Amino acid sequence: SEMDLHNQGRAKFLEFPFVSVPHRALMVNLLSTVENRLGLQLLPCTLPLDVQHCQNESGTAQASLHIRSGQQSSTVDFILGSWLHCKLPTGAALNITSLSAYLNLSTDAPNFVIELIQSSPTSLVLILDLPPRKDLVLYPDYLQTFYEDSQLETRRQMLQKLPEVQPYVTSSLYLRSLLSPTAIMIRVETEEGGAGPMEEIVKNHVEPVAVEVLGLWLDHCACGGREAREEEKAYLKKRDELVKKKTIEIDLGSNFPRLFGPELTDKVMGAIRDVYNV
Amino acid sequence: SEMDLHNQGRAKFLEFPFVSVPHRALMVNLLSTVENRLGLQLLPCTLPLDVQHCQNESGTAQASLHIRSGQQSSTVDFILGSWLHCKLPTGAALNITSLSAYLNLSTDAPNFVIELIQSSPTSLVLILDLPPRKDLVLYPDYLQTFYEDSQLETRRQMLQKLPEVQPYVTSSLYLRSLLSPTAIMIRVETEEGGAGPMEEIVKNHVEPVAVEVLGLWLDHCACGGREAREEEKAYLKKRDELVKKKTIEIDLGSNFPRLFGPELTDKVMGAIRDVYNV
Repeated sequence: SEMDLHNQGRAKFLEFPFVSVPHRALMVNLLSTVENRLGLQLLPCTLPLDVQHCQNESGTAQASLHIRSGQQSSTVDFILGSWLHCKLPTGAALNITSLSAYLNLSTDAPNFVIELIQSSPTSLVLILDLPPRKDLVLYPDYLQTFYEDSQLETRRQMLQKLPEVQPYVTSSLYLRSLLSPTAIMIRVETEEGGAGPMEEIVKNHVEPVAVEVLGLWLDHCACGGREAREEEKAYLKKRDELVKKKTIEIDLGSNFPRLFGPELTDKVMGAIRDVYNV
Repeated sequence: SEMDLHNQGRAKFLEFPFVSVPHRALMVNLLSTVENRLGLQLLPCTLPLDVQHCQNESGTAQASLHIRSGQQSSTVDFILGSWLHCKLPTGAALNITSLSAYLNLSTDAPNFVIELIQSSPTSLVLILDLPPRKDLVLYPDYLQTFYEDSQLETRRQMLQKLPEVQPYVTSSLYLRSLLSPTAIMIRVETEEGGAGPMEEIVKNHVEPVAVEVLGLWLDHCACGGREAREEEKAYLKKRDELVKKKTIEIDLGSNFPRLFGPELTDKVMGAIRDVYNV
């Protein structure tokens, strides 16, 4: 049944079988928080099982995808959770976990995104942001409301001050443009002591900030009661659609075909485009 | 006469009396390059002399402002050069020099901006960019043309690689939003050896990159032959006007009144608003 499909995929997604205990705890915490708060606003994940969980023939790469659309009456367009694991030629493994939440045209409030990219037990990239849905240069009130008044900058600075933290600059200029001026984009490097120090940082620093930013998003964006103005909906629609198209290209365009082959890539892309309605 | 007013203010502006020889050489080089290329497209600077050059009563602060509007037939709205000098309570001096160039509605190509903020002989902040005039998320072709194809990123990375260079994050979220994803925003710190090492970096690294970026702007933006589409001019006009208003607030809103008093600030702001037409 539809509910079995949802439950089976969700359980597999929530395993996060290749990341550290605190990393998994962080992701499970974030997904549960969203699910608990939004409740029945979220429809079950109805992706085919082989899209919810992918594996390549040699078993060196696995991916999990969990997408739940929002009810018609919700402000949520959909939430998307994913993880990707692949063995690197060096013997190390690359693990990417992410949770995004997109709002629909009933509101112009920002989306939510977190992505953790771990290329070794001592190296982690974190992207955490409420990406704006309007041009902040043209809408300074929007900048004021969601980015200045919300004090997102103080969270960014807190993480930036840790000695293990460096700014991270993504090579995608589109992604740089998409993120807000308070986006947290950092690289954490822990040189000594194996995986322990990184796990401490994820637990004591990354998780609290991620929980706070998600809380801000739930309170002020998803459930903030801010309605989009009727005359701005065409603008929002065009911008949202472009963002979704470009994000699919960026997320699946480069690595996915190489890891899982063109056939599976087309299948996953098609399934995502259906949900995204682009 | 009008030409005397222009020549007198320009000579004073080009003195840059408080910065190092290579810093002055860089600024003079940039202004001459713009003037030589645009020639008679630029009208003389007709600001009152006491706006072209300001000084406070105690003599601890001085500023120079040089604005030339573009001819009707030019793509240039105006160019603006400025310097500010003030003594800090610590005994050190703050010196800011800048050159901006804004295009008008005949084209949608990016503007140009360079700002050097020197708070001691061994500490320099550099902002160098072609700020976009359209929302890059909504106009990915514009991002491709002016930021990906132009290889601005390689210049940013070159400077970022110097051991004396750290990323600089401005406290203004509006300014962060305004700049492009390839904006050069760096802090150069030279710990040892007095002013010499900083002067070397300005001469050997900052000046060549600034000259290249200005060259790109002249070739591809000011003289690139790219016309704005008629149906986009209302959008461009609104965005340009907002940018100009906000930029005046950011540049003159905080320090200027404190240094020069409310009366002179009002006079300078009024003169700039006249030229900016906002």
